[in-house]
Amino acid sequence: MSTLRELLDDLPLADADARRAVHERAAHILRPSGALAWLDEIAAWVAAWQRTSAPRVERPVGLIFAADHGIAAATEVSAYPTGVTRAMLSAYEEGRSTISAFARLAGATVHAVDVGVGRPTNDIRYDPAMSRERFDEIVDVAVAAVDDLDGDLLVLGEMGIGNTTAAAAIAASLAGGETAAWVGRGTGVDDEGLARKRRAVQESVRRIAGVTDPLEILREVGGCEIVAITAATVAARRRSIPVVLDGYVVTAAVLPLHELDATALDHCTVGHCSAEPGHRRLLERLGKAPLLDLDMRLGEGSGAMAAVPLIAMACAGITDVPTFAEWFGE
Amino acid sequence: MSTLRELLDDLPLADADARRAVHERAAHILRPSGALAWLDEIAAWVAAWQRTSAPRVERPVGLIFAADHGIAAATEVSAYPTGVTRAMLSAYEEGRSTISAFARLAGATVHAVDVGVGRPTNDIRYDPAMSRERFDEIVDVAVAAVDDLDGDLLVLGEMGIGNTTAAAAIAASLAGGETAAWVGRGTGVDDEGLARKRRAVQESVRRIAGVTDPLEILREVGGCEIVAITAATVAARRRSIPVVLDGYVVTAAVLPLHELDATALDHCTVGHCSAEPGHRRLLERLGKAPLLDLDMRLGEGSGAMAAVPLIAMACAGITDVPTFAEWFGE
Repeated sequence: MSTLRELLDDLPLADADARRAVHERAAHILRPSGALAWLDEIAAWVAAWQRTSAPRVERPVGLIFAADHGIAAATEVSAYPTGVTRAMLSAYEEGRSTISAFARLAGATVHAVDVGVGRPTNDIRYDPAMSRERFDEIVDVAVAAVDDLDGDLLVLGEMGIGNTTAAAAIAASLAGGETAAWVGRGTGVDDEGLARKRRAVQESVRRIAGVTDPLEILREVGGCEIVAITAATVAARRRSIPVVLDGYVVTAAVLPLHELDATALDHCTVGHCSAEPGHRRLLERLGKAPLLDLDMRLGEGSGAMAAVPLIAMACAGITDVPTFAEWFGE
Repeated sequence: MSTLRELLDDLPLADADARRAVHERAAHILRPSGALAWLDEIAAWVAAWQRTSAPRVERPVGLIFAADHGIAAATEVSAYPTGVTRAMLSAYEEGRSTISAFARLAGATVHAVDVGVGRPTNDIRYDPAMSRERFDEIVDVAVAAVDDLDGDLLVLGEMGIGNTTAAAAIAASLAGGETAAWVGRGTGVDDEGLARKRRAVQESVRRIAGVTDPLEILREVGGCEIVAITAATVAARRRSIPVVLDGYVVTAAVLPLHELDATALDHCTVGHCSAEPGHRRLLERLGKAPLLDLDMRLGEGSGAMAAVPLIAMACAGITDVPTFAEWFGE
């Protein structure tokens, strides 16, 4: 876990000049000043983290981490069997999933990374999800995956039957409040399934009641794909690639970073707010507003990918439209 | 005005079979049932109006109508001089405007149609905006423009310095309530400009106090590009092209259709809710929710164009992703 802590200790700052340059240009572009409102802010944000006054989204990338969860095999917390995780992994690889279809329209590529399919975590009700060694291995894999990317905007996604249970355990442990309120229907469990899921999360949270370190909480009740997302988020910042956050699981995965350093997620924007009730509360805790609010609850990065064209448009609205002076002087 | 009334009297209905086919397929696609929520509804809506069980957005088109407003020349109701309308017309033609930049990312083409630049309407405080003859001419031009399109989804946009004043007069006349509450800052007038704009709208609304026919109200206090949008909306339905509505002006332009026939806008969805305060109230009156809510206030169809990739994704989520049976049987 030391690798991740070291990465966090040495976070690059935003390029304030690039951000300022975009705001200045935005004020003179061939449209009423301020007419693009939030989209101009998004363009300035991309500029600040791409470290350029000409922000572009030309090579967006979706990176999906997939893994199995021991708790999903032990008790029914999902509407789907654990085998679905592996099946979806091949759907991503063959470009047949929903995010693949979205990515084609967003001009994005999608890569899936197996960080634990067929090698489930422990049942988090009774044991830490993974050892410190495994946590570190996953961090290394995730950092390497980000280092290998050719991209200018990163969508992080996840696949892992049972992972909204782990996400709820992380959220409840870190954000507190009534545990049951952090648990939603995920893929669509019925009332009985929801009650079972709530008990599972309560037991997991109770087991680690004394643990306060956010990364330890992540290791105790998280999942392999969740840890990978935490690490990939930090790695992207070091490569000057802004990140688009997806739904509940991804947001829970980055919550430990926010708890350790309130500026650690400044290079992340939120693609959408999902139908999972805990997601909106997490976004409030992060102080971030979603670009889209469409009641989606799919995961795999699909909601974030749906927002990619908007971010690309925000940038093009700065770089591809002349100022009044450029237009009338042309 | 008889042409538009005739078109309205003979509105095609939705293809209920196509809509049902999409809903049935959506329930079995390789993702949790219902996970795409609203996007599945959008795909079914596209199917119903494209009249096919395989809805596609492959040739989206933006059609921008531009015209001058007499009231903008007579009194300062905009932060910009009326000459900007003509300048923007060339920006659309040369692909240098904000909607052009957005359209490139949405895979859309943009066409601008001059329906009155350099030939302003009358000052609506004192006279009808246009004669019945001119109204009919514009309807003919707009219907022909839609008939000439090669497209599968239509974004309607407008450009006309002064047209949020006309839009407010239409909205106040048709929807009632306090007139001033329908008037916003448009391109960004200051407090004095806003007060002037409110007085202008109040005078216009008072002038036509006895008029109740929605199309007459449109002719009395509308604008040429506004009438063109009204007509193009009806024409698109007859060509089985679903329509994405933009901001306050476009929504005010289609309001007369809704007042004449509550089903007349069933083939229209709302791309975004703008920062113009009257827009949200108009959308409530139409009973329609916007896909995006980003505080934009640009017009020219830009907010609707920003939503086009989402609509394309909704369709691809049905047509380009296998069902569980197709995937596991493959």
